[in-house]
Amino acid sequence: MQRVTIDLGARSYPILIGPGLIGDPAVLGDAIGARDLLVVTNEVVGPLYLDRLLEALAGKRVRSVLLPDGEQHKTLDVANRVFDALVHGRMNRDACVVALGGGVVGDIAGFAAACYQRGVDFVQVPTTLLAQVDSSVGGKTGVNHPGGKNLIGAFHQPRAVVSDTATLKTLATRELRAGLAEVIKYGLIADAGFLAWLESNLASLLALDPEAIAHAIRRSCEIKAEIVAEDEREHGRRALLNLGHTFGHAIETAAGYGEWLHGEAVGVGMLLAADLSRRLGWLDDGDVARVRDLLRRAGLPGAAPAIGAPRALDLMGMDKKVLAGRIRLVLLKRLGEGVVTGDYPAEALVATLAGHFGGAA
Amino acid sequence: MQRVTIDLGARSYPILIGPGLIGDPAVLGDAIGARDLLVVTNEVVGPLYLDRLLEALAGKRVRSVLLPDGEQHKTLDVANRVFDALVHGRMNRDACVVALGGGVVGDIAGFAAACYQRGVDFVQVPTTLLAQVDSSVGGKTGVNHPGGKNLIGAFHQPRAVVSDTATLKTLATRELRAGLAEVIKYGLIADAGFLAWLESNLASLLALDPEAIAHAIRRSCEIKAEIVAEDEREHGRRALLNLGHTFGHAIETAAGYGEWLHGEAVGVGMLLAADLSRRLGWLDDGDVARVRDLLRRAGLPGAAPAIGAPRALDLMGMDKKVLAGRIRLVLLKRLGEGVVTGDYPAEALVATLAGHFGGAA
Repeated sequence: MQRVTIDLGARSYPILIGPGLIGDPAVLGDAIGARDLLVVTNEVVGPLYLDRLLEALAGKRVRSVLLPDGEQHKTLDVANRVFDALVHGRMNRDACVVALGGGVVGDIAGFAAACYQRGVDFVQVPTTLLAQVDSSVGGKTGVNHPGGKNLIGAFHQPRAVVSDTATLKTLATRELRAGLAEVIKYGLIADAGFLAWLESNLASLLALDPEAIAHAIRRSCEIKAEIVAEDEREHGRRALLNLGHTFGHAIETAAGYGEWLHGEAVGVGMLLAADLSRRLGWLDDGDVARVRDLLRRAGLPGAAPAIGAPRALDLMGMDKKVLAGRIRLVLLKRLGEGVVTGDYPAEALVATLAGHFGGAA
Repeated sequence: MQRVTIDLGARSYPILIGPGLIGDPAVLGDAIGARDLLVVTNEVVGPLYLDRLLEALAGKRVRSVLLPDGEQHKTLDVANRVFDALVHGRMNRDACVVALGGGVVGDIAGFAAACYQRGVDFVQVPTTLLAQVDSSVGGKTGVNHPGGKNLIGAFHQPRAVVSDTATLKTLATRELRAGLAEVIKYGLIADAGFLAWLESNLASLLALDPEAIAHAIRRSCEIKAEIVAEDEREHGRRALLNLGHTFGHAIETAAGYGEWLHGEAVGVGMLLAADLSRRLGWLDDGDVARVRDLLRRAGLPGAAPAIGAPRALDLMGMDKKVLAGRIRLVLLKRLGEGVVTGDYPAEALVATLAGHFGGAA
């Protein structure tokens, strides 16, 4: 088992990484602490892992709630089902919410834990690569609003993250690939050496080689831990973690939640960020080709949908009038060094969008 | 204008108290800061004060949303209307939510501000006595769940509280009296001198004498400020502020939200707390009579509904089986000194409940 610590003073917590942790009473008992638990999972993950988890939690008072699967169900209404389960279970402030599943389950369960009685304990048991390397770590929780992703939420740190790498065996290939997009993100923003390692070990990762997978998860969590510890509430550097996300959100929203996987949209978004960085003279053609090749080898989509640059701008929260006061984007100074900046020519952004989304709506 | 500061380090904020503040651009401009505002009010308060507030906010980009009036509307669905208004107004993380109204409006608006984009600024403009002395101060926000009050919420401190005492002239007498219950609470838990002052000045308060009202609000806020600064998240001493609330919640829930005003239920709850304190030998008959007389002179209900002690126990989150591990209550060591304790004989509690709610359901 590997261990990474998120250093947030009194709210510090461990990320535990290894195969079979869902069935390990000692690891879970230590991670969870509380005696009263609500396990939140979904109709895909529940049938696979809930029984094993419940067995390992024998001796505690455990209830569970099964949510529908998919980003389109990350809503306030579905969060309310978790509140209902907490109330019907008469859970009090000593209770703990355990999220068993991917990013959607973790975000909803974490938001419910943040709000129930103004905050109860929360443990993440992520079962997708994306959740293990990204969404389960760092305390961002929330649900979507028809007007945009994650518009309703809270910062609420878990008291532990338990990443059972054996769960990746039951993960759909498409989901695995989407998770790799976030792994690649960490290399791009913070560690050129890790990026090179990914280029060399991509085949092993896709084949779920245990050592390669554990290394990729640990290194991703280390990079995220370091950034989150420095800027928990995203007043500055934490925004680096959003590489590709502003472009990606436009893709996800245009397609409707659930059509593109989050990681797929982020993958294409990173390609746009690399392209814009090239237009600013920070990357060269070879750098962009490396990003494109790595994403392609990971099996991620290579092109944005043809929604047109104006619609993409609109979905990014911008229009022609506010291009002057344009939003900050995460770009790449070089491969392995991200930067958060609003200091780019509007024309370079428009050219990038036109090049990828098409010129007209 | 009087000023009380809530001392919470970087999140400290002022409470400004005086007549006519809603129409004062300088005070409001200073308190609010942001340029993008959403004013949340309700269909009773809006027609009375919204125009005056909007006039004083001229020059800012202001939208408003009108909620239905009443505790029965303090729900997640109604909070969602505030999210809708924020999204439709394309408000971003620099926006500020302004709550114009009583405790229900403040609790919903504050919760929405806590969750929108994981937290935006929030200013309270309370227009009821209860909100001015209690609910607008201290950062507790939230909505009710059919299973209980305030079960869904967040700690989210406002950046200012602007209490316009002139608004009390349009407050229903019943609401004014309910607010006085919370004012009396501060005397009971923390300041025997203030309690005596209330006994001497109750007629002036009921007549809305400006000096008496301003003194009562300021002293109440000072006591609350001191307690909240010491224990923001209610791990200990802050629970003192719940004198009468555990009993009161049972009354409110039994009657259905909206039948009893919160302050009315708290008033009767304080009487039960005093009675139980007497049974423990901390108060004498004369002390209990003082509490009863003051509540009666304030025009508050003098008796609990006859729901029976077993049902009251159940609504307090207890039943016979868990009486051994009984919940902590706020009781009175003497008039002017509250104490949070679970150390009382179960029989004394049962006798108190039977004496006030009746012996059987």
